[in-house]
Amino acid sequence: MPVGTQGTVKAVPQDTLESLGAQIILGNTYHLYLRPGHEIIRRMGGLHRFISWPRALLTDSGGFQVFSLSALRKVTDEGVQFRSHLDGSSHFFTPEHSVEVQIALGADIIMSFDECTEYPATRARAEESLRYTMAWARRSLAHFRDHREDVPWFDPKVCRTQCCFGIVQGGMYADLRRECAERLVEMDFDGYAIGGLSVGEPRELTLEMIAAVLPLLPKDKPRYVMGVGYPDEIEQYARMGVDMMDCVLPTRAARHALLFTSEGRLNIKNKQYAEDQNPPDPACDCPVCRRYSRAYLRHLVQAGEPLAATLNSIHNLAYYLGIMRRVRKSLEQKPVPAATDH
Amino acid sequence: MPVGTQGTVKAVPQDTLESLGAQIILGNTYHLYLRPGHEIIRRMGGLHRFISWPRALLTDSGGFQVFSLSALRKVTDEGVQFRSHLDGSSHFFTPEHSVEVQIALGADIIMSFDECTEYPATRARAEESLRYTMAWARRSLAHFRDHREDVPWFDPKVCRTQCCFGIVQGGMYADLRRECAERLVEMDFDGYAIGGLSVGEPRELTLEMIAAVLPLLPKDKPRYVMGVGYPDEIEQYARMGVDMMDCVLPTRAARHALLFTSEGRLNIKNKQYAEDQNPPDPACDCPVCRRYSRAYLRHLVQAGEPLAATLNSIHNLAYYLGIMRRVRKSLEQKPVPAATDH
Repeated sequence: MPVGTQGTVKAVPQDTLESLGAQIILGNTYHLYLRPGHEIIRRMGGLHRFISWPRALLTDSGGFQVFSLSALRKVTDEGVQFRSHLDGSSHFFTPEHSVEVQIALGADIIMSFDECTEYPATRARAEESLRYTMAWARRSLAHFRDHREDVPWFDPKVCRTQCCFGIVQGGMYADLRRECAERLVEMDFDGYAIGGLSVGEPRELTLEMIAAVLPLLPKDKPRYVMGVGYPDEIEQYARMGVDMMDCVLPTRAARHALLFTSEGRLNIKNKQYAEDQNPPDPACDCPVCRRYSRAYLRHLVQAGEPLAATLNSIHNLAYYLGIMRRVRKSLEQKPVPAATDH
Repeated sequence: MPVGTQGTVKAVPQDTLESLGAQIILGNTYHLYLRPGHEIIRRMGGLHRFISWPRALLTDSGGFQVFSLSALRKVTDEGVQFRSHLDGSSHFFTPEHSVEVQIALGADIIMSFDECTEYPATRARAEESLRYTMAWARRSLAHFRDHREDVPWFDPKVCRTQCCFGIVQGGMYADLRRECAERLVEMDFDGYAIGGLSVGEPRELTLEMIAAVLPLLPKDKPRYVMGVGYPDEIEQYARMGVDMMDCVLPTRAARHALLFTSEGRLNIKNKQYAEDQNPPDPACDCPVCRRYSRAYLRHLVQAGEPLAATLNSIHNLAYYLGIMRRVRKSLEQKPVPAATDH
C-alpha cells in the first residue's frame, strides 16, 4: 500500500496511482487530524471524496506518529497527551477520539489505537506498553461498534460501513506478541495488524516476531504488517502469508534519488549515470522505464527539478506493486505448503 | 509554448503535456549549457531524445538569461562575458557559440544571439544595444548556415534540419524596432521574434512595440513574441497576428498557488477555499478540474505537498492552451480584417 500521509502519495497524481494498479492507499490520521482537520474532511464527505480516490483507503490510528513525530508525549491509561510537530499546540488522543477521527475520515479500514513500543525496550516496559495497547484495542472496538454508522458516506439502505483492525504489539518479546494476538482475536476484529516493527531492530528479529504471531491470526481475515519494508522483505513476508503491508520507503527513497530495480538499488544521482541511455530498470515496463533514461533522471535530480521526485516515485511504486503482483500470481498457481497456509 | 527551462516543464510529466495538447515546448540554452552541458545532450542525440519529447522544441539564444540571471556581465562587440548563477564560473558567449550550443541541443527552432535591452534605457543605450543585436544576428545566421548539418539528428537522406529565427530588439523606440525588423527580414531568417518586451514597461508600451513591428514581418513566416504574458495579453496578441508566444507565467504562478480561470485569478491558498467543493474552474475540462476540488488543492498548498505544483501547473497550462485553441478556431472561422491580416 503506497502511503499518502497528508492525503496525497507524495508527488504522484491519483490517476497515475490508478494506472499503476494501486488498489489501496494509506492516509495518516495524525497528519490529517492536524491539517486540514478531520471535521473539514467529514464535511467534504470523507477522505475518498476529499482527495478524489475512489478505491480503498486505510487510515492508521495516529499512535505511531504520536510516538515518532510529536513532542512532550505523555501516556496515561486514558490516552496520550502530545504537542503538534507543526505548531506546538497541545492535543489529547484517546482510543475513542482516534476512532472518532477515523470515522470522520471515512477510510474503508481503520486501525485501533495502540502504543508503539520503542526499541530497545525492557520486558517491564514492553509489558506496560502492551497493557495500554490491549485496553485501548477493546475501547477502540467498542467505540467503533457504537458509532460505525457515523461514517460520512453511510447509506442505511446498504449498511456498508468501515472495517476495524486490531494491532498486535509486544515489543520484541515473542510471548507477549502471542498473548496480544490471542486477546485481539477473541475481540473479533475485521482484520489484524502486526505493529511496532521496523523501529530499529535487526531484521532477523522482525522476521521472528512476524513468524511468532502470524499462525495465531485467522487465515480468513486480512493480516497486515505495518511499516515494512525493502523489496526483498515484502516479498518474504507476503510468501509467509502476510496479506497487506505499507511503507513510505518506495516514495521516500525516490525523493532521495534511490531507485529499486531488478538489478539492485541504484543511486540515480551518481555521476556514472550522466550519459547512461538505459531505462532506470531494463526489466521494468512502468511508464518511467518505458519513456526516460537514467541520464535524464540523473539530470532532473542534479538540477533540483520537481519532476525527479515524481518520476522516481512512479518507478519505485511500480516496482513494489510489481513484486506483489508476482507473489500473488505464484501463490495462486502453486499448492501452498502447510506451514505458510494462506 | 510552455517553458521547460532545464529540459522539463517544471513539475509536469511529458505525457501529461502531450495529453494537454502542447505542440511545442521551450528549453533554455543558458541553463542547459551550464547543466547538464550541451555536449552531454549532443551525445545523447539531442534534447528531444534526452528529455523524451518527440514533438517540437525551441531553444532561446541564452541572451535573455545572461541578461537576467548571471553576474558580472560584460558586453563587447565580440560577445558577452558572464559568471554562472550556479557556481560563479566564468563563461564567454559569442553569437557563434550560442548557435553552436543550440545546434548541439538540436531543437527544431533556434534563436539568433541577441542583447536584451533593459528598461528603462536611453535612446543612446538602446541604439548601442541594437547595434550588438543586429551584428550578432548576422553572425548567428552565418554560423547556423555553415553548421546546420551538425545537428545530432541530421539525416543526409532527408536533409531536414533546424530553423533559425531572428530577434527584433530596439528597446521602447518604435523607429529602432522598425529598423531592426527591416534589417532582419533582409537577412531572410526562417521566422522572426520580438524580444526585449515584458521587461518592466507598462503594457501599453508592449502593445505599441508589437503593433509597430508586426506589419513589417513576413506573414508567411512564424511571428513570435517572447516572454509574454497574462491570459488576456496572449489572446490580444494572437488576434493581432502573433503566431507564437512563450511564458513561464502559467507554471511559475501555479507554483505560487495562483490559478488562472474563466472567473479570473484565484489564489488557491486563501482560507475561503478550505471547504470549496467546486473545481478550480467550473468552465474548464482539464484533468485537474475534472477530478479535484478547490478544497483539496488548497490543502495540498497548505501542507507543502509537491502535488500542489503539479496539479496547479496542469490546470494553468490547460487554461493557456485552451485560449490559444479558441483563438485559432475563431481565426479559422471568420474573415480576418485587413488591419490584423494574418
